[in-house]
Amino acid sequence: MEKLKKYGSVKDEDQFYHQGAVELLVFNFLLILTILTIWLFKNHRFRFLHETGGAMLYGLVMGLILRYATKVSDVGSGTVYECEKLKSGPSTLLINITNQVYEYQYKREISHHNVNGHQGNAMLQKMTFDPSIFFNILLPPIIFHAGYSLKKRHFFRNLGSILTYAFLGTAISCIVIGLIMYGFVKAMLHTGQLKGWEFHFTDCLFFGSLMSATDPVTVLAIFHELHVDTDLYTLLFGESVLNDAVAIVLTYSISIYRPKENPNVFDAAAFFQSVGNFLGIFAGSFAMGSSYAVVTALISFMHLTKFTKLCEFPMLETGLFFLLSWSAFLSAEAAGLTGIVAVLFCGITQAHYTYNNLSPDSKMRTKQLFEFMNFLAENVIFCYMGLALFTFQNHIFDPLFILGAFVAVFVARACNIYPFSFLLNLGRKKKIPRNFQHMMMFSGLRGAIAFALAIQDTESQPKQMMFTTALLIVFFTVWVFGGGTTPMLTWLQIRLVLVGIDPDEDLKAEAANQSTSTLDKNTTKAESAWLFRIWYGFDHKYLKPILTHAGPPLTTTLPEWCNPIARLLTSPSAYGDQLKDDDTDYIINNDELTENYGSSAHIPVPAQDRTCSTQATNKEDINEGDLGLGGYKLQLEHTAGQPQMNSLA
Amino acid sequence: MEKLKKYGSVKDEDQFYHQGAVELLVFNFLLILTILTIWLFKNHRFRFLHETGGAMLYGLVMGLILRYATKVSDVGSGTVYECEKLKSGPSTLLINITNQVYEYQYKREISHHNVNGHQGNAMLQKMTFDPSIFFNILLPPIIFHAGYSLKKRHFFRNLGSILTYAFLGTAISCIVIGLIMYGFVKAMLHTGQLKGWEFHFTDCLFFGSLMSATDPVTVLAIFHELHVDTDLYTLLFGESVLNDAVAIVLTYSISIYRPKENPNVFDAAAFFQSVGNFLGIFAGSFAMGSSYAVVTALISFMHLTKFTKLCEFPMLETGLFFLLSWSAFLSAEAAGLTGIVAVLFCGITQAHYTYNNLSPDSKMRTKQLFEFMNFLAENVIFCYMGLALFTFQNHIFDPLFILGAFVAVFVARACNIYPFSFLLNLGRKKKIPRNFQHMMMFSGLRGAIAFALAIQDTESQPKQMMFTTALLIVFFTVWVFGGGTTPMLTWLQIRLVLVGIDPDEDLKAEAANQSTSTLDKNTTKAESAWLFRIWYGFDHKYLKPILTHAGPPLTTTLPEWCNPIARLLTSPSAYGDQLKDDDTDYIINNDELTENYGSSAHIPVPAQDRTCSTQATNKEDINEGDLGLGGYKLQLEHTAGQPQMNSLA
Repeated sequence: MEKLKKYGSVKDEDQFYHQGAVELLVFNFLLILTILTIWLFKNHRFRFLHETGGAMLYGLVMGLILRYATKVSDVGSGTVYECEKLKSGPSTLLINITNQVYEYQYKREISHHNVNGHQGNAMLQKMTFDPSIFFNILLPPIIFHAGYSLKKRHFFRNLGSILTYAFLGTAISCIVIGLIMYGFVKAMLHTGQLKGWEFHFTDCLFFGSLMSATDPVTVLAIFHELHVDTDLYTLLFGESVLNDAVAIVLTYSISIYRPKENPNVFDAAAFFQSVGNFLGIFAGSFAMGSSYAVVTALISFMHLTKFTKLCEFPMLETGLFFLLSWSAFLSAEAAGLTGIVAVLFCGITQAHYTYNNLSPDSKMRTKQLFEFMNFLAENVIFCYMGLALFTFQNHIFDPLFILGAFVAVFVARACNIYPFSFLLNLGRKKKIPRNFQHMMMFSGLRGAIAFALAIQDTESQPKQMMFTTALLIVFFTVWVFGGGTTPMLTWLQIRLVLVGIDPDEDLKAEAANQSTSTLDKNTTKAESAWLFRIWYGFDHKYLKPILTHAGPPLTTTLPEWCNPIARLLTSPSAYGDQLKDDDTDYIINNDELTENYGSSAHIPVPAQDRTCSTQATNKEDINEGDLGLGGYKLQLEHTAGQPQMNSLA
Repeated sequence: MEKLKKYGSVKDEDQFYHQGAVELLVFNFLLILTILTIWLFKNHRFRFLHETGGAMLYGLVMGLILRYATKVSDVGSGTVYECEKLKSGPSTLLINITNQVYEYQYKREISHHNVNGHQGNAMLQKMTFDPSIFFNILLPPIIFHAGYSLKKRHFFRNLGSILTYAFLGTAISCIVIGLIMYGFVKAMLHTGQLKGWEFHFTDCLFFGSLMSATDPVTVLAIFHELHVDTDLYTLLFGESVLNDAVAIVLTYSISIYRPKENPNVFDAAAFFQSVGNFLGIFAGSFAMGSSYAVVTALISFMHLTKFTKLCEFPMLETGLFFLLSWSAFLSAEAAGLTGIVAVLFCGITQAHYTYNNLSPDSKMRTKQLFEFMNFLAENVIFCYMGLALFTFQNHIFDPLFILGAFVAVFVARACNIYPFSFLLNLGRKKKIPRNFQHMMMFSGLRGAIAFALAIQDTESQPKQMMFTTALLIVFFTVWVFGGGTTPMLTWLQIRLVLVGIDPDEDLKAEAANQSTSTLDKNTTKAESAWLFRIWYGFDHKYLKPILTHAGPPLTTTLPEWCNPIARLLTSPSAYGDQLKDDDTDYIINNDELTENYGSSAHIPVPAQDRTCSTQATNKEDINEGDLGLGGYKLQLEHTAGQPQMNSLA
């Protein structure tokens, strides 16, 4: 028989039913407001507030209202019952109350000092998501979309630099933040501010790793709208995408670092185990994600054989694409790997191979679907961040820690960008100029990933303080840096392709040449020397022909004795399609993906991009249109602002 | 201090984390299998198994595997703790176990005899959804899509008949099933089969109402693929859509019917209260759904004024459309109405007004988005139905009750279709022929709604028996009737528009004339006399001009003295757009919505439809294309299988 200590708490049952609806309605309302505001801003070409910033602002206001305008209705819910005989919490608990059996489901473990947080405003409690929602529902579409919309040609050309920033840079950033914070924490412990807290160096490193995930979504949206230099765009985007993956795995590896003895003493075994964990999880997630994408590519590839034509059923094709990509996430989670990382590499691989095999209709559908999911999820997260400042009930504001964090974050960003840029410039033919480096330094915004990593664990007091601090850094960087992007671009004299009204090719090419670019566009072909060339050669000769109907026939690329296998694996259309191959790299084009919601009516594509991608798209349309799509054909038209019907007349 | 009775149950905590991933992975796997199978079937033009039937089959097999191939791992989880001091269950419960506080969340109330169901296979338990997921997550997109894709012209023309079948027919069906089942239950009680059960007439009526929700998704898919007569299609589709709404509200009204005294004696007051509830909830949900749609229409309408152009940002437009439609559902739920009914009428109204205001890109996006959500949700539900036969742990199979239910369902369907068709034929100019009536009788499939209504409450034994029986009826009707649709159409000699290869207009018109149709296509304009005409007149003269940029200017339809207001409300483009008005009714075209995933390469649209909708779409493209869409224009092309590039050359 157990004893139960009870402080009394009675909850009206009727409230359970419609509870979720009201919360979701609040979010819907905030998102609707955000959309209407952004619409207004876009009309007036205000660029200082991106939709994510707007969502955060509305969330903040709503949080303020919920906090101070709703009454405390659930007074006595901080009741703790004692149960001595159980050794751990069962997943479901059946409780007999006045002869009714109620079923309770395990939610989480909470620490004793947080029990008080459960007293108080019921509405605030209800507006608090389960942190796992961020990782399992909201982040995957955002990350997949990032991978799927990676501008591949530029990405692979800058692969070396991007990997350096993302891996080494993030590691450095993590360590620098960890060291600086450790200094501050030592000082705070010395002054007696954190009396009785356990705050080790690993906790500081944990904070360092979660604060190393940059998320320059605002900056990238403005870059895109203003057509800032593609290499700068790619460097920043590529870095932010891969750096998320690194930061997530790094945070996880640090959180499971358990030295055997004194936690303040370096334990080599535990350290190497953490490094091993990091490498294992990263590699495993990478393999899981890309293998699902390869399976999708193979299935969708089959549509060219005469037996089956999946591309005739875009709905089935889209469904399969969606389900297999999601399975990549779920399988990684189920296998104890990192789903987010898996889904990122799945997205990149899907874009590289599967996308080429999809019917034009499915290309459009998948792009729009993930774009839409990304849009919603991103705004929900930023909205929730605003809300969390007031609705989260265990904030710990510590001015010294916050000051330290701000200093640490900027110093760490500088230690990432400047030294590595210097080193990279030694090897790069096309240098990263000073103003680009400053812009990258400036674009070290923190966003959704840092927030999601911080909110995952808010049980102990150090973690709560970290969460509060992370939230404030996100606010500051998104509003101040995000809002300051346009002035910064002007100040740093970074080349913008002029937004002209005339869609004429020559004029724009001229504009591009007259621009203040410090880079010679014509030398780009020879960049990112060996890494890119090795990868490209292998991919072009073997992977593309096997997985897509692009590339040279395998019979020409494989050694003679492999001919029987090569003939089996080569798509019959590969022989005729050799011309197309050069273009297939460009067909996932970020311009296509976002320009139809990102900006105003006339968006000239940067001159060089335009030539390539337009040709690729049109060629594809002609070639694949012949497959017959049930009288329903989507056509991408790239002549800005000119309806096709008119141009025919 | 409370006493806790404890039987012991320890659950490994590590399992919590990756648990959800495995379950979802199983569903993903089943859906992927379903898609691959359907793809194969479509290739071979097998029409006897629709994707929903396939999903159900795979679910069944997976359920069988889970049931008999997984080991019993969670032996002692049927533990009931006693808690005397609490008066009702709090929403969250904090429990102190070995000095760790665990948080538990209220899930549901369960009755004592079901406690045993909690013992046993942990995997089976985990594969069991919370029933509210069906109503809050899976059904809304399905129902919204149904409303959004309603073929409006034919729907309004047959409005009287559809309303008769849906309202009166469903009521009759509910009563007939209730009466027959009551007879069977009486007999079973008499033979002592249901010893000690409480089984009132209201329970039988409850069963009757939930079994009255028809869901001929399989039949409609085949009708669509084979181009069966549009009026038959519309009658069936319209009936099934509205009848869901009626059945849901009816079930709810019956479930809250509480006679004061003996539950077997008729209580007039309680009865009229239930009728009042029914009417109130139905009208309230209708109002809620359509008012959100009207708000959306007004917002999207604003894009024609010079200040703001929402249509330039299809993403924002789609987002707004999605969020406002979802808000209709949530608001209705929060207000204690029926969200499903609200979302249905929201869909219908969105299609009627808002759709006309959307940019071509958003039209495409919203259609594809909801089509995709419908596809996934439908297959998940049918998959789950298959699973539930083996994973649900409280089945009660009673042969007599099942027999009774089968008899009752078919008799009730007959009592709905034949008498009402007879009565309707007295008033209809275009009679519903005998073979159509037989086909409608045959198409009384039960599906997602009946299942969702039955699984909502499986606490008492009668409800468990009803759930089991409902499940079997769904299986039987989907497989047998769904699979028998094509033979039945042939047997009943129902006109099919021949599927020709030549997309030429005249040939198809000829084919249509040569077909065995008993209806004269040319008289359709004069059908559904007064109800349709009154509504159409009002809608055309006042609502369309106010809410869309179609229809005649208000200045011509309103009386002279209203001119100032009329001028204010009329869209500037309305004056020039009078020609377009006749077509706007047709632009949500079910062919467009599904043909790109429903069938093979050459889908000739029925002759009459084709002329109208093609013109409408093209005209729209030209007119709205001028607004400029950021160099990215979607174009719907209706010339079956002919790529446009070729036709230009």
